[in-house]
Amino acid sequence: MRVKLYGRDGAGRLMKVKLNSGRVMTTPTFFPVYNPHLPVITPEEIKKEFGWNEIITNAYIFWRDRRLYSEAKEKGIHRVLNFDGVVMMDSGAYQIWQYGEIEITNREAIEFQNEIKPDIGTFIDIVMPHNIEYEKAYEGVTKTIKHAKECVEIGSEEVSWVATVQGSVYEDLIRSSAEMLRELSFPYYALGSLKIATSQWLFKPQVKYVVEALKILPRSRPVHFWGLGHPATFSLFVLMGLDTFDSASYALYAKDDRIMYPWGTVRLDELEEFTFYSPYLEKYTPQELRNVSKEERERIIAKHNLWVILSEIKSIREAIRGEYLFELVQERVRSHPGLYKAYEYLLKNYGSYLEEYTPFSKKHGLFVVDNLFKERPEVKRALRIVKKLNSTKTLNHPVYGKIPATLLYTYPFGQTVYGDEDMVVPSTEPEEQVRDIIRYQWGVEIGEVNVEVRNGRPRKVYKDGKYIGMIRPYDGLFVPSVEGAELLKNMLPFPKGRVVVDEVAKDPVSEGRSVFTKFVMDIDPDLIPGQEVIVVDENDRVLSVGKLVLNPREVEEFEEHVAVKVRHGTKNRQS
Amino acid sequence: MRVKLYGRDGAGRLMKVKLNSGRVMTTPTFFPVYNPHLPVITPEEIKKEFGWNEIITNAYIFWRDRRLYSEAKEKGIHRVLNFDGVVMMDSGAYQIWQYGEIEITNREAIEFQNEIKPDIGTFIDIVMPHNIEYEKAYEGVTKTIKHAKECVEIGSEEVSWVATVQGSVYEDLIRSSAEMLRELSFPYYALGSLKIATSQWLFKPQVKYVVEALKILPRSRPVHFWGLGHPATFSLFVLMGLDTFDSASYALYAKDDRIMYPWGTVRLDELEEFTFYSPYLEKYTPQELRNVSKEERERIIAKHNLWVILSEIKSIREAIRGEYLFELVQERVRSHPGLYKAYEYLLKNYGSYLEEYTPFSKKHGLFVVDNLFKERPEVKRALRIVKKLNSTKTLNHPVYGKIPATLLYTYPFGQTVYGDEDMVVPSTEPEEQVRDIIRYQWGVEIGEVNVEVRNGRPRKVYKDGKYIGMIRPYDGLFVPSVEGAELLKNMLPFPKGRVVVDEVAKDPVSEGRSVFTKFVMDIDPDLIPGQEVIVVDENDRVLSVGKLVLNPREVEEFEEHVAVKVRHGTKNRQS
Repeated sequence: MRVKLYGRDGAGRLMKVKLNSGRVMTTPTFFPVYNPHLPVITPEEIKKEFGWNEIITNAYIFWRDRRLYSEAKEKGIHRVLNFDGVVMMDSGAYQIWQYGEIEITNREAIEFQNEIKPDIGTFIDIVMPHNIEYEKAYEGVTKTIKHAKECVEIGSEEVSWVATVQGSVYEDLIRSSAEMLRELSFPYYALGSLKIATSQWLFKPQVKYVVEALKILPRSRPVHFWGLGHPATFSLFVLMGLDTFDSASYALYAKDDRIMYPWGTVRLDELEEFTFYSPYLEKYTPQELRNVSKEERERIIAKHNLWVILSEIKSIREAIRGEYLFELVQERVRSHPGLYKAYEYLLKNYGSYLEEYTPFSKKHGLFVVDNLFKERPEVKRALRIVKKLNSTKTLNHPVYGKIPATLLYTYPFGQTVYGDEDMVVPSTEPEEQVRDIIRYQWGVEIGEVNVEVRNGRPRKVYKDGKYIGMIRPYDGLFVPSVEGAELLKNMLPFPKGRVVVDEVAKDPVSEGRSVFTKFVMDIDPDLIPGQEVIVVDENDRVLSVGKLVLNPREVEEFEEHVAVKVRHGTKNRQS
Repeated sequence: MRVKLYGRDGAGRLMKVKLNSGRVMTTPTFFPVYNPHLPVITPEEIKKEFGWNEIITNAYIFWRDRRLYSEAKEKGIHRVLNFDGVVMMDSGAYQIWQYGEIEITNREAIEFQNEIKPDIGTFIDIVMPHNIEYEKAYEGVTKTIKHAKECVEIGSEEVSWVATVQGSVYEDLIRSSAEMLRELSFPYYALGSLKIATSQWLFKPQVKYVVEALKILPRSRPVHFWGLGHPATFSLFVLMGLDTFDSASYALYAKDDRIMYPWGTVRLDELEEFTFYSPYLEKYTPQELRNVSKEERERIIAKHNLWVILSEIKSIREAIRGEYLFELVQERVRSHPGLYKAYEYLLKNYGSYLEEYTPFSKKHGLFVVDNLFKERPEVKRALRIVKKLNSTKTLNHPVYGKIPATLLYTYPFGQTVYGDEDMVVPSTEPEEQVRDIIRYQWGVEIGEVNVEVRNGRPRKVYKDGKYIGMIRPYDGLFVPSVEGAELLKNMLPFPKGRVVVDEVAKDPVSEGRSVFTKFVMDIDPDLIPGQEVIVVDENDRVLSVGKLVLNPREVEEFEEHVAVKVRHGTKNRQS
């Protein structure tokens, strides 16, 4: 299993995951449920028509059916499905929850998967709803851990096994369950959906359960969420830190003539015009579709629904790439009060968790579209810093309140779009601005500087005749040169602002190569992804400057990943 | 011109408009701008590919071009365009604003349109931006009115002429302009876009301008808004009471490789995956589209953009049909802070305007997804009423605060979805509930009643052995029978709760036929659309009961329209 981060916002991330099988997938992604007994959409269609790379099916169903069993054993699951993408397998855990006991044992389920080789496999965990009693939940967690150990023992190395954290709404159970599974070092983790909570759109208990578990699970592993099928919910769950989803909702909704839109579901019989299009509805008016035979209509709606789901997954990926996932979530949570409540609960109760992961600066502006804006991690962080600056020249920002006038163009203040007339801004000198920007980023007073101004704003910064860095136009933040880093380092107590690298990485890093996690010996624990950092050797000598890609916790957890994208090394000074 | 209302929410409405030409259109609708010199998408394509019935082009462009001029004169505009739907014509007003003087006079523009016969024609009004000086705005309004008078004098009867209210941000000018145009009795009105305001997404001045004008313009006429091209804005402007829009944005954006989504615009070069479906982008990845020749790419993106615009118009129509336009707006205004601010401004400053039009009860639930919810007209109205009820048995509603426990299932309380756990509800007797529901609707104490309970809730209501009405399951409101209406009428001072009809309508109305506006002699001025009303004759004798479709102002303004959908007449009692 190798995981590479390509983008992030909130605790959400865009990753390429290379599974133990060698197959690669981009996350966030969605696994459409394929039931070989109820094949509304076939794996071939998912691959060819939808161009989709992921699918999930159920080991228990294959195991129980004599023909499927022997065919799968003989050919392997990919050839049986005629699907060369990523195949995930559920274990039958859901069936146990639904029907009580089933005839397959955990060992049998694992051994069967060892043989038929899905890319992602699952042992039998104990599914639990949000209203389970504590004793029963405790029992379920114990049994799940026992099954997890069996999986570690006998599971094939070629399968990427998913371990599901259980515990329902009980924090202590969630935590101990997550800790034990973390110790067992699985390549993939998962969380359950507390079934009943989802069906009523009361998401608060789920937010708690998800975040409490994610605080413990290693961030270097993908995390799945079982059975979340409505596209309107995905972006919020990605923002919390989840990577993959699965559901049969597209087909189940179709059975009831329910048509999905990214923002909700509508019954076919209530519609007069189709609005959100897919290639499947294009040929019909609602009236015409109502007249299509039940079976054919079900297929058409199922395909439409799957299209909408996959389309939303793509929207989320685009939002992470463009660093506007928060903006997407702000919109999507308006599609249902349950989502809005969950978002409010997440911001108000897990603000520091979100702050750990949310980049220090982003490409996209911050959109003020509600009164929760001040609970956003970018905003809380920024306000905490400016409070400490004790600036005298302030301006009254319509959103942030009193902030230093010198930081008018600095992230997030200058990138905040609030849809109203401009405010009154006291004028400040470019030198003052640069000094305050540096105080904002490092908390140190750089003293006298000379500043070259371009388009009325500070650009290149010199001190004692030396170029020490520049103010980046798009976010108004200071990007130090190697000389600037040297200066800052001398003002900051160890290890503040620093990433310390191993002796062996010294040369490449000082030549301008990226810093990889495995060579990081020490790191300022308060650093935030996206910050400019000083890379030093073990004797605190500056090697280079660059942008931190991961947070300190991730730096520790990702075995092989870029930690710092180096901009300049001491041996390739480009001022 | 005949206008028929099919649905409403907020001040927005779904209408069928029969123009003076005889052609019919459904509003809200959008007129794609067609420039014969820059034909990115042809009228034939708009009709056939998009199945769209409306288009707008420019009289001045046809007038100036020698070939187009004579062709249009000879064949008429529909045959020149090869478009048999509704053709709207702009006058050249925008060109004057852009280039100063142009060579066509108002008289010439009108006479030319008289000959080439668009369905909807325009005289030359004076376009003004939001930052124009008062004197200039005053002059512009005066000139516009002069042109309007000329149009009334010489304009063909077959053309439905649009009169644009000008006045920029000056309330007195907007009002006097609207009043003078109202006096001139045009079949169609319009508002300008204050150009500059739109381009900066600062919508507050526009909200004021629109609502101040709409308060004066007759609601029995469609109202156009010039040059609003971004789909994310439409739903809010429809909620305010506008019916039609036009823009060339789909083509202009395409020229810049900008791709529209219902929630915003993205630059092609920033995209890695397409998310919103249209048949035009389906064949390409963003990378592939970037490699298509400029000209072809522009056509593809223009078609996609138009598709998205028209799709949003359909969404809005569906939202009005389903009575969830507020819910759609709540979501759409999250796509840009300028829209959010405008929505906030609308609710906080024009609450009573919205209350006049927003139905008393709706099919769709109310979604609580922000802290502006309590500013919604449904909510303010309901809270004002319950405050007067002085109930003793109250419950603490998480959204509404203290409300009578007896109204738990009554609109809007029982239909409000707030995404959190249930509240504690003190039990109340069905008889108490019915009495309070009637107090809520009419402010009178009905006294002792007998109530038949179904599924734990009150259903049929009797007094003194007579059936007086029922509690409607979906909104928990009392629907009186003719006996119930008689009872209520005797408790209510004239004309409270009543619609008084003319002698000639007496028989059909008492036989159960709908009440038409022209037969309404008097009406309780405080009535709200959607309310149950008592229809009486001029001697205050009950003729029937039914649901009010229009508000009192509309009842006066609509020449020929259903005012009350009668449920029971005294001559066809069905209890």
